[in-house]
Amino acid sequence: MSTVRFGFIGAGFMGKAHAQAARELKTCFPDAAATPVLTTIAAASEASAKGAAERYGFGSYEKDWRALIERDDVDAVSVLVPNHLHHEIVIAAAEAGKHILCEKPMAMSVAEAEAMAVAVERAGVRNMLCFNYRRTPAVLHAQQLLASGAFGRPYAFRGVYLQDWLADPEIPSNWRLRSDVAGTGTLGDITSHVIDFAQFLLGDISRVQGLMRTWVTERPAASGGGRVPVDVDDEVMSLLEFANGAVGTIQATRFAPGRKNYLGFEVNCEGGSLWFDYERMNELWISRGSSGTSGFERIVVGPDHPYGRHFWPIPGIGVGFHEVKMIEIHDFVRSVVTGENARPDFRDGVQNQRVLEALVNAAATGSWQDVVP
Amino acid sequence: MSTVRFGFIGAGFMGKAHAQAARELKTCFPDAAATPVLTTIAAASEASAKGAAERYGFGSYEKDWRALIERDDVDAVSVLVPNHLHHEIVIAAAEAGKHILCEKPMAMSVAEAEAMAVAVERAGVRNMLCFNYRRTPAVLHAQQLLASGAFGRPYAFRGVYLQDWLADPEIPSNWRLRSDVAGTGTLGDITSHVIDFAQFLLGDISRVQGLMRTWVTERPAASGGGRVPVDVDDEVMSLLEFANGAVGTIQATRFAPGRKNYLGFEVNCEGGSLWFDYERMNELWISRGSSGTSGFERIVVGPDHPYGRHFWPIPGIGVGFHEVKMIEIHDFVRSVVTGENARPDFRDGVQNQRVLEALVNAAATGSWQDVVP
Amino acid sequence: MSTVRFGFIGAGFMGKAHAQAARELKTCFPDAAATPVLTTIAAASEASAKGAAERYGFGSYEKDWRALIERDDVDAVSVLVPNHLHHEIVIAAAEAGKHILCEKPMAMSVAEAEAMAVAVERAGVRNMLCFNYRRTPAVLHAQQLLASGAFGRPYAFRGVYLQDWLADPEIPSNWRLRSDVAGTGTLGDITSHVIDFAQFLLGDISRVQGLMRTWVTERPAASGGGRVPVDVDDEVMSLLEFANGAVGTIQATRFAPGRKNYLGFEVNCEGGSLWFDYERMNELWISRGSSGTSGFERIVVGPDHPYGRHFWPIPGIGVGFHEVKMIEIHDFVRSVVTGENARPDFRDGVQNQRVLEALVNAAATGSWQDVVP
Amino acid sequence: MSTVRFGFIGAGFMGKAHAQAARELKTCFPDAAATPVLTTIAAASEASAKGAAERYGFGSYEKDWRALIERDDVDAVSVLVPNHLHHEIVIAAAEAGKHILCEKPMAMSVAEAEAMAVAVERAGVRNMLCFNYRRTPAVLHAQQLLASGAFGRPYAFRGVYLQDWLADPEIPSNWRLRSDVAGTGTLGDITSHVIDFAQFLLGDISRVQGLMRTWVTERPAASGGGRVPVDVDDEVMSLLEFANGAVGTIQATRFAPGRKNYLGFEVNCEGGSLWFDYERMNELWISRGSSGTSGFERIVVGPDHPYGRHFWPIPGIGVGFHEVKMIEIHDFVRSVVTGENARPDFRDGVQNQRVLEALVNAAATGSWQDVVP
Repeated sequence: MSTVRFGFIGAGFMGKAHAQAARELKTCFPDAAATPVLTTIAAASEASAKGAAERYGFGSYEKDWRALIERDDVDAVSVLVPNHLHHEIVIAAAEAGKHILCEKPMAMSVAEAEAMAVAVERAGVRNMLCFNYRRTPAVLHAQQLLASGAFGRPYAFRGVYLQDWLADPEIPSNWRLRSDVAGTGTLGDITSHVIDFAQFLLGDISRVQGLMRTWVTERPAASGGGRVPVDVDDEVMSLLEFANGAVGTIQATRFAPGRKNYLGFEVNCEGGSLWFDYERMNELWISRGSSGTSGFERIVVGPDHPYGRHFWPIPGIGVGFHEVKMIEIHDFVRSVVTGENARPDFRDGVQNQRVLEALVNAAATGSWQDVVP
Repeated sequence: MSTVRFGFIGAGFMGKAHAQAARELKTCFPDAAATPVLTTIAAASEASAKGAAERYGFGSYEKDWRALIERDDVDAVSVLVPNHLHHEIVIAAAEAGKHILCEKPMAMSVAEAEAMAVAVERAGVRNMLCFNYRRTPAVLHAQQLLASGAFGRPYAFRGVYLQDWLADPEIPSNWRLRSDVAGTGTLGDITSHVIDFAQFLLGDISRVQGLMRTWVTERPAASGGGRVPVDVDDEVMSLLEFANGAVGTIQATRFAPGRKNYLGFEVNCEGGSLWFDYERMNELWISRGSSGTSGFERIVVGPDHPYGRHFWPIPGIGVGFHEVKMIEIHDFVRSVVTGENARPDFRDGVQNQRVLEALVNAAATGSWQDVVP
Repeated sequence: MSTVRFGFIGAGFMGKAHAQAARELKTCFPDAAATPVLTTIAAASEASAKGAAERYGFGSYEKDWRALIERDDVDAVSVLVPNHLHHEIVIAAAEAGKHILCEKPMAMSVAEAEAMAVAVERAGVRNMLCFNYRRTPAVLHAQQLLASGAFGRPYAFRGVYLQDWLADPEIPSNWRLRSDVAGTGTLGDITSHVIDFAQFLLGDISRVQGLMRTWVTERPAASGGGRVPVDVDDEVMSLLEFANGAVGTIQATRFAPGRKNYLGFEVNCEGGSLWFDYERMNELWISRGSSGTSGFERIVVGPDHPYGRHFWPIPGIGVGFHEVKMIEIHDFVRSVVTGENARPDFRDGVQNQRVLEALVNAAATGSWQDVVP
Repeated sequence: MSTVRFGFIGAGFMGKAHAQAARELKTCFPDAAATPVLTTIAAASEASAKGAAERYGFGSYEKDWRALIERDDVDAVSVLVPNHLHHEIVIAAAEAGKHILCEKPMAMSVAEAEAMAVAVERAGVRNMLCFNYRRTPAVLHAQQLLASGAFGRPYAFRGVYLQDWLADPEIPSNWRLRSDVAGTGTLGDITSHVIDFAQFLLGDISRVQGLMRTWVTERPAASGGGRVPVDVDDEVMSLLEFANGAVGTIQATRFAPGRKNYLGFEVNCEGGSLWFDYERMNELWISRGSSGTSGFERIVVGPDHPYGRHFWPIPGIGVGFHEVKMIEIHDFVRSVVTGENARPDFRDGVQNQRVLEALVNAAATGSWQDVVP
């Protein structure tokens, strides 16, 4: 197989990111398993699909996603629409025999997520979720260091995801603030990324405790004229227990003035620590000991780090979100060719969704919730 | 009253810090309410007391703390000994009519703390706890900013206290690792400071959830020869609810390789955020908004900040722990002169102790624990 | 004109960067003045050109750059080859009526640069130099702030460009270490970028003083077998006087262990300061005053900053070198369409080259050198 | 000798700093060579001397510095007055057989400095200059690392000293802005510290080039009523050559809005680099290599670093300027007892003064100036 022919469903900011990554894959990865081809795109409206097709270089567009998934010249479907649509589209795409790359959070519920996982497994198609931040080279390097055992027994994880774009109560409402479209608020939107980090770095989460808050309960309607309710969570805090014995905390909010995309983690192990902050995504901070003369070393990630040689010749020239998405599509394309899922696949997504649901239950009941693997 | 005559009980690292602060108070604060006089000191042994008296310039020493608190020429007692001794000494000192400056954590239990608070109130003596870090000028400035209402409604607190001096499992045991002396481990030693920050900045904590872990359950005996058990907590994680509606997380550990004295907090409010890290104790990071062009401003604290004019003429010349202790003694001396407690007083200490105890209970039961004010 | 048809000369790391930027221009800038078309490419060898054409999606390739510039279906030529080839290629391309986008440093000498500038002006073609770093959104924002006069009179510029990829004396030689190919070492390679920053931010440099050093005078031959001399500068330090009265220093080196691509500047003005470091290219540090309570604010650049709305919806998602090159091609394409050069054009390049030459003379003679505008 | 009896001349901010350090020396250094005794103090006026004597705990005060240096019960004189008085006082004190600790800059000219050096040598008294910043534990550690040869051949020094307390042109004049009192402006006040760092870390400076600027040529009179001229330099920039072959740049200014006491240096050697910034005086940044996976390690200085064990038990509790001055007095007292000067002694000061004078000449003539050792 020399190409993977893509149909995109969704033409928003993620459509742009995915299209650009697919188009440039071979520029940076000449040995990629296959060349992505942008075959067709469907969107919320025909006009939107047509515009995106032109802008992003798709060969055609479709009025309707159902038509898209029926096309013979589409090998893989990228699901880039709001959360409440994932379930239906994914199951239909799987039944149509398409490989699936799906944006996060996976679904509106564990039940939906499980049904999606069953569908892709039954259809025997590749499946992957776009928890893209774990593909930041610095994060990949962190995971390798931890997996190598170089730091010994892991003790603690501290994850944060702080943004401020909702801090002003006069910001109008949008789909991410509606439970019928987004399912949850901060939880699915950004907490899910922290959970993905936690699972990627330290493995299964076995129990959670948590609280959720909605700070601003109504906002101006986006369309102007009056106010509409906000029925999702604005802030999530959590305690975690991992299967390997480590413990953790999470704070996720879109109400932290001054924090823009502060997705960070610290991991403390017996013999070392790691600190990462996505606002400085080209850096990884590594502490290799606890003596009185040791500290954190600031590593500027470059060609000697995972996937780095595919970009620029020295560290510090700067990769951004585009390159992260390129790594994602690289791995997805390889999975299609090799027949082996890239992670996080839908089973990982179900697990992520279970943690989200456990957090909702913990916040509602005040009790620790087991996360069944 | 032109002097406050001190008797110290304890000659360790804290004895040195308190003595130096007392001796230099008038150097930096010529208008201090009174001049501290280092009258006498008692310690674990006569030799230790004698040595400290010479080194720190006390006029005399005592073989026994009981003799010290009986002296007529002692106005105030500084209790600088391990936690399990606070209760007995404080009550005796109060009954002897001495004002009391007591190191933290206050006591081994809420019951002990309450008895101590009752004793000082019955005796009508001034009382203060050495949660000294809240007297860092940057932290005082943070508190003023929050109290001024400039940032509006507070949403979230994230407190950390990370050290690494116990990360190596071959570090020998010491009194801080024995429950009969220290009561608890990380909880009383450092978590109590984070709780003090939380209460200082955001007011009463009303409910807590938490977990505690002991990572290394036995260590080489300090005396050499064999290993001894560790029966205190090494790591504490917590969720908080404040009476004012804000929420928070805490991580405290002495097992974070690379972190030395990383006592930090972030507070997110509707209109701004604050970030502080004691490893950079002369800095306060302030965000005053959430627009796309705003961020955190790094303030180097100096003469225009609380107490700063008493030290150096411009910011960035550097104050350290010594100056923090000087501010502490300044305020304590003033309280003795004015008859009005400086904060945190023993009632604040009882409340802090209640949070600690609630955390123990939460960790043991898995249930949220109310903190009765 | 709806397209600008490009012929690239050069297929190295810069070929990859330019190709990718050209291909994605419309993805991010749907309203760009024209669509770049990758028509053809020439390189050091036919095999290299053929490989690059396939990898980067050129419609064809040429064995020889001379054939490329004669093609009727090429509107613009991107000159992406080592320095010593710029002069001949540019003049030939200009005479062939092609618009020219040329990598830096411009030329081997001021005389060459002036001849190149005359050639493009005589031919009436657009011309632009790839001092790409000035198109980092944070740098563009810095320039706007300075140009707005918000900070008042400028006093001082401090520029650094520190790398470490040559610090190890056993790194083999390469073309950047040969004066017959590169002209100069650190001077043309990286100092020229600092000078471009200086001129972009503060205007004309009127006088320079400087020193140059070669730290390692021979290195292993790249081909193996023996050592070859290094006859270019490894380190450049300079003092600057600007026409507007400001002064400055520069340090540029590829021998700073631990610094990867540390291209930074600080500008101090009467009413504020700016600090930027390309290793954190998404940040600009702004100080707006000099009171005892002011400091530097860390701005994470995003959609509210120059060109930012074309990339990601919030700050902190991360743009990298790719986006900087996209801004460059955006502006170049616009210049082709509008007929007005984008800056830095070849006249700016001549001026940059004059500063480089003045630095060589200053280092050789020890005397301040005027830079004739 | 169990005590060194001090007479202070000067009761300003430095009087406070020195007194406090002397008083606390034994608190932190029980094994110090001798105990400083604060015998007497003279100041600009009798009232000032009397007040300082009370506040700082001197046994007596003198109306006149000439009386002070004649006292038999004074072993050492601390010269803490503005620059123009150093020469006369030091020579008289030397002739009276007193050891001398003198604030910086040493003198108004090389001629004065040499006369002072001759005087102390002729008298056989100990002599030391208060370039205190080199005694910051992090800087001492940096010097040890460099002196150990661990980083190999030194290449480059970049020194900065940026403050902002004069950036506002409406700040009234003061003695530091008058050439008849201060000699020079930024040059003697702060540039001299950077030169001390350079000489401490890399040894003798052999040649300098430089420029000086006065940004604000008149200011409101401190007394109110009218404006007075400023006849000293506001900004100094310099290039340096060291005897060991290294080169360097300096920027020093009191016109950098947002910089408070930003005294920093970077040293690049073949095998490593160091970075220090006094605004974060408890940190040293160390890079130990130039591979693609190396970077700067942030060391929080503590008990394992020079003098650190005399202060607090773990890194990060925080030392400040007070502790730096304590280290200074510790070393001076030792020099008095041992009979061997502590560095920087007056010969070092003469050399520092020669660099300052060479900078003035370089700035005036535009020519490189040799610095005769």
